[in-house]
Amino acid sequence: MKALVLEKKDELNLRDFPAIDRVEETLGPRDVRIKLHTVGICGSDVHYYTHGRIGPFVVNEPMILGHEASGTVIEVGAEVQTLKTGDRVCMEPGIPDPNSRATLLGMYNIDPAVRFWATPPVHGILRPTCVHPEAFTFKLPDNVSFAEAAMVEPLAVGVHAATKARVKPGDNAIVMGAGPIGLVTALAALAAGCARVYVTDLAAKKLEIAGSLSDAITPVDVSSENIVDIVKRDTDGWGVDLVFEATGSPHAARTVFEPLCPGGCVVMIGGQPDPIQYDAGAAMVREARVENIFRYAHVFPRCVGMLSSGAIDVKPLITRTFDFSDSVRAFEIAASAPPADVKMQIVLLQ
Amino acid sequence: MKALVLEKKDELNLRDFPAIDRVEETLGPRDVRIKLHTVGICGSDVHYYTHGRIGPFVVNEPMILGHEASGTVIEVGAEVQTLKTGDRVCMEPGIPDPNSRATLLGMYNIDPAVRFWATPPVHGILRPTCVHPEAFTFKLPDNVSFAEAAMVEPLAVGVHAATKARVKPGDNAIVMGAGPIGLVTALAALAAGCARVYVTDLAAKKLEIAGSLSDAITPVDVSSENIVDIVKRDTDGWGVDLVFEATGSPHAARTVFEPLCPGGCVVMIGGQPDPIQYDAGAAMVREARVENIFRYAHVFPRCVGMLSSGAIDVKPLITRTFDFSDSVRAFEIAASAPPADVKMQIVLLQ
Amino acid sequence: MKALVLEKKDELNLRDFPAIDRVEETLGPRDVRIKLHTVGICGSDVHYYTHGRIGPFVVNEPMILGHEASGTVIEVGAEVQTLKTGDRVCMEPGIPDPNSRATLLGMYNIDPAVRFWATPPVHGILRPTCVHPEAFTFKLPDNVSFAEAAMVEPLAVGVHAATKARVKPGDNAIVMGAGPIGLVTALAALAAGCARVYVTDLAAKKLEIAGSLSDAITPVDVSSENIVDIVKRDTDGWGVDLVFEATGSPHAARTVFEPLCPGGCVVMIGGQPDPIQYDAGAAMVREARVENIFRYAHVFPRCVGMLSSGAIDVKPLITRTFDFSDSVRAFEIAASAPPADVKMQIVLLQ
Amino acid sequence: MKALVLEKKDELNLRDFPAIDRVEETLGPRDVRIKLHTVGICGSDVHYYTHGRIGPFVVNEPMILGHEASGTVIEVGAEVQTLKTGDRVCMEPGIPDPNSRATLLGMYNIDPAVRFWATPPVHGILRPTCVHPEAFTFKLPDNVSFAEAAMVEPLAVGVHAATKARVKPGDNAIVMGAGPIGLVTALAALAAGCARVYVTDLAAKKLEIAGSLSDAITPVDVSSENIVDIVKRDTDGWGVDLVFEATGSPHAARTVFEPLCPGGCVVMIGGQPDPIQYDAGAAMVREARVENIFRYAHVFPRCVGMLSSGAIDVKPLITRTFDFSDSVRAFEIAASAPPADVKMQIVLLQ
Repeated sequence: MKALVLEKKDELNLRDFPAIDRVEETLGPRDVRIKLHTVGICGSDVHYYTHGRIGPFVVNEPMILGHEASGTVIEVGAEVQTLKTGDRVCMEPGIPDPNSRATLLGMYNIDPAVRFWATPPVHGILRPTCVHPEAFTFKLPDNVSFAEAAMVEPLAVGVHAATKARVKPGDNAIVMGAGPIGLVTALAALAAGCARVYVTDLAAKKLEIAGSLSDAITPVDVSSENIVDIVKRDTDGWGVDLVFEATGSPHAARTVFEPLCPGGCVVMIGGQPDPIQYDAGAAMVREARVENIFRYAHVFPRCVGMLSSGAIDVKPLITRTFDFSDSVRAFEIAASAPPADVKMQIVLLQ
Repeated sequence: MKALVLEKKDELNLRDFPAIDRVEETLGPRDVRIKLHTVGICGSDVHYYTHGRIGPFVVNEPMILGHEASGTVIEVGAEVQTLKTGDRVCMEPGIPDPNSRATLLGMYNIDPAVRFWATPPVHGILRPTCVHPEAFTFKLPDNVSFAEAAMVEPLAVGVHAATKARVKPGDNAIVMGAGPIGLVTALAALAAGCARVYVTDLAAKKLEIAGSLSDAITPVDVSSENIVDIVKRDTDGWGVDLVFEATGSPHAARTVFEPLCPGGCVVMIGGQPDPIQYDAGAAMVREARVENIFRYAHVFPRCVGMLSSGAIDVKPLITRTFDFSDSVRAFEIAASAPPADVKMQIVLLQ
Repeated sequence: MKALVLEKKDELNLRDFPAIDRVEETLGPRDVRIKLHTVGICGSDVHYYTHGRIGPFVVNEPMILGHEASGTVIEVGAEVQTLKTGDRVCMEPGIPDPNSRATLLGMYNIDPAVRFWATPPVHGILRPTCVHPEAFTFKLPDNVSFAEAAMVEPLAVGVHAATKARVKPGDNAIVMGAGPIGLVTALAALAAGCARVYVTDLAAKKLEIAGSLSDAITPVDVSSENIVDIVKRDTDGWGVDLVFEATGSPHAARTVFEPLCPGGCVVMIGGQPDPIQYDAGAAMVREARVENIFRYAHVFPRCVGMLSSGAIDVKPLITRTFDFSDSVRAFEIAASAPPADVKMQIVLLQ
Repeated sequence: MKALVLEKKDELNLRDFPAIDRVEETLGPRDVRIKLHTVGICGSDVHYYTHGRIGPFVVNEPMILGHEASGTVIEVGAEVQTLKTGDRVCMEPGIPDPNSRATLLGMYNIDPAVRFWATPPVHGILRPTCVHPEAFTFKLPDNVSFAEAAMVEPLAVGVHAATKARVKPGDNAIVMGAGPIGLVTALAALAAGCARVYVTDLAAKKLEIAGSLSDAITPVDVSSENIVDIVKRDTDGWGVDLVFEATGSPHAARTVFEPLCPGGCVVMIGGQPDPIQYDAGAAMVREARVENIFRYAHVFPRCVGMLSSGAIDVKPLITRTFDFSDSVRAFEIAASAPPADVKMQIVLLQ
């Protein structure tokens, strides 16, 4: 089998990639070797394909894509304790420096030394096998499929956001944005205790999917409806407890405080290349708390547990599946606008 | 209509109670008058009936029972803003001193001045109408029935416990005890984000009900199974994130730390008349946090929201319903041991 | 004695004010009557004097100024329990609706119904006596002077900010701005556990005062020094744990994240009339928490305790004292720019 | 130079210890080699000397004592970035497994794999040099002496306790026990924001030292005074916000809730070999939070910062100093009862 290599902007090839084979010969005592099964296509993968860079991360050399992955353990290092050959697993794509200050403090996701799959110069895992640390590889129960397991990575963003928000049971929330991250955030917010989640967007098709996920989700088309009026009406004028900003749009970001209740919390998820407008006055009269989040930490096994127990169901988000041999075409479709799919996945083994 | 009056230990009558009528003539500017609809029978009501006291609270004079209630607003005070005649509501049974230090700090449930229904010398609400402050009366959406609404009071205990526990999405928990409070705590813990809840008890019948509530609940009969072994096996030896003690048994209470993970939290819900054994060494090596809870605060509207959105379903817990005219018999059945029901309710209006 | 009346913008008179006398005849059962002793001059008092308004609050009718006050109880209501005639006290100037949702939740400072001294249309207390609720009147120990007690109000802003910041022992902090609020915030941050507080400003005189308050305060003149370089050098590149924005300058506010450590907290204290620039990218890579604060809640008795025990010393901030008969002149001086004083106070009784 | 070796219970020798020399030949890329300067004598060192064990930790082979240490870096590994030869440092004595679940979560102190100096079978550092990871070695500013730096280890217990307590500025606290840990906890609680700390003990001499440390400390001799009465009188019947149990006495531990205010926190510091009596009823009516702590995590650099800035002064606790050549005698004195000293230290270099 081959690897899906982004040679440079706009050029993808499914081809041999000998360099990786050599790296993977080394299995440390606390590493496992994994045969990849399913890999989801993330917006960042597509962005590298179409733009050749994301912010400061530039594709200067051929790079293998893919970081949302599940597979099967095929070899374990000498000191590995929790995994064995044959275990079905999913993998956390970012590996921090275990001795860094941020990691020791429990915030490994914001360790500047993190090496993250498919972020230059680190290769991704659209390839036959990989070597990964046991500590970032998580065993799957029988009732979690490879496809669901490859959804753990995007789901982790939503679950991390809900964790940092410190959702209290019965909170009402707004999730701004009905893209893949908005949808997993809405599912995570509900699983974390929200009574109701308003999902806002401008695209009717996305809102339709959002609304289909749960009776507790109220889709709101902000091109025609006023979200502040709606939540004030539904909450006796109090406002929602939580606002999750998942659009990355500066226009949306400037409106986060208006629908928020006194003492409420705003969670900034969507990346913003430029400074945004911040309504400090509106934030102050509510004593709003603002949490800014970056990827996730400690939530992969939690996501697996929630998928297994039924607390969260991500299957409706997996809208299309491709064979690995078709993966270049999969990226071409993913790069076409507007995408008709929530999440597309590539299956390496069947 | 009449009131259900506990004359003294072991003596209940459904009879006129003129004193209440006189009190209820006064409707303050921020009060509402409510026609009662459904009232649940709580273990404490039954305990007053069978023992004439609970700890320092002694029934020295005839007292109306009942504190789990829903009804309809029939009159509103001059300054009432959020409610109007005809609104279907449920009511929080404890009214604090609004100027006390604990209340101002947001902890009105532990204000020593709280007046709580059916706690001597305060009358309960198994009676036709009551006058109640707007601030502790909560409007019901159309899709929440009076029966469900009368479950909000016991549910609030579980939701408060889950709130104080600060459940994180994907936590695993044990709820010790499958009585009514254990069951609402299990439902609340799941709604608050738990992936899996182990419910322990000695009674097979109760465990069967517990297990029927959700696939994410694992009933464990601790007369034949070792809960520590089970959770260690399921969590790679790590333990559960949360233990809710809802038995009130000193024997159970002394075992709370053993199945707990490092950094985990124990929530003490069940009342204990005497000091219990506390394994400080086991608590320390885990740096356990222990939260001790008393009733609830701020959660009634949250419970209503979760019943309405489907986040929590209490209907399976309502196992028997009596007409108000039958309420003495209802208490006789409730007082018979072992009770075959989770929650019995009395309906005043139909 | 007379009252200090702001007739309208730019016009102050020390004169009889009969309307107040009539209001003060009513002493509720939980109120106390207080003879005022010392009243501090706040920037907001001066702003009403020089501009006739602050944001939406407009002086449309003559209004008595002053809200930083201490005095002596001269009469108590029938139900008052913690105070008696002769008690020396300080008073919290904002009185919320005790039944509002925000107040019940423990956040009375953000109750929209708060009535706050010297905020139109509510009169201030540069007058002989006032009537105030017991719950917002705090007894002074013998070793806290009237002058110190009149500093509790501004100090409360700093202590509330430090409380919301959740200072951990040994934190390093920046306080941006060396005005009166910046200085009380620096003192509060140190008392709350900071090891070191960098105070930044452009005015050498203010920085000199800041530096004189404690060896643990490092004044930084940001007109000539780079605060980011300084804290990175002092912290091995890690950054400070906390940034308190107390300038109210939009220019300063846009720089809050740069010196902040991973997982750090920014507290927005300074009011901002317009939206500010928010560097979402810098906030995200640090997973910064942002707390926006509004006045204070629950901290007056805490401030009194810290003044009494010596944990905080505000005496160096009281730089000038005027007799009440001189109070018009005091405001004229306070309104002259640049003010040479940190805090000026008016003494009504001696 | 030699090492101080506990051959077995009751037998100490200052002698050559070749095994250690061999281990120390290996300097990893992220390790530093340190020449020891000052080492404090801890109660646990003395306990191993007099009893040969502490709980499950048994001295089966000769073991070097000592874990409260400061010294000078004499060699650095190839990848060390924050330290260089000649740096004066103090060292954290417990080294966790960097890849364990507890460590990744930021709770390395409760990682079962921690290797802790002078805890069998790990040797302590009453020896000329040691090799230690950079991540657990902390540079000293010029104004922190070696003697103060060797106090960071016990101080860290108090600072960790105050951190877990989440002290708010102006809290009132009780520290039960005026031994070395009680005293550092009192200092830490004050530095963390307490307005007043009551220190209780039965020994007049210890209380005298406690009272001499700060005007904000009130020593209370519980053999003759009732601490509950005192705090109720001082707080209008409210109680203290925090109770730190630092005696390790089961009798003291059973009384922790009585003086506590509604919503207060108890921190269990003192080790308890057997289960203690826990007054669940008293804990519940207050909704007490209980934090159980084990050693410390993340606080060494914070302690160094607070010693440097003057936020905490530990010098009064260092009551006697011995030359290394005298260290056997130092332990004999430390083992004699009752000890007249708070902290005795051994100086290896001068």
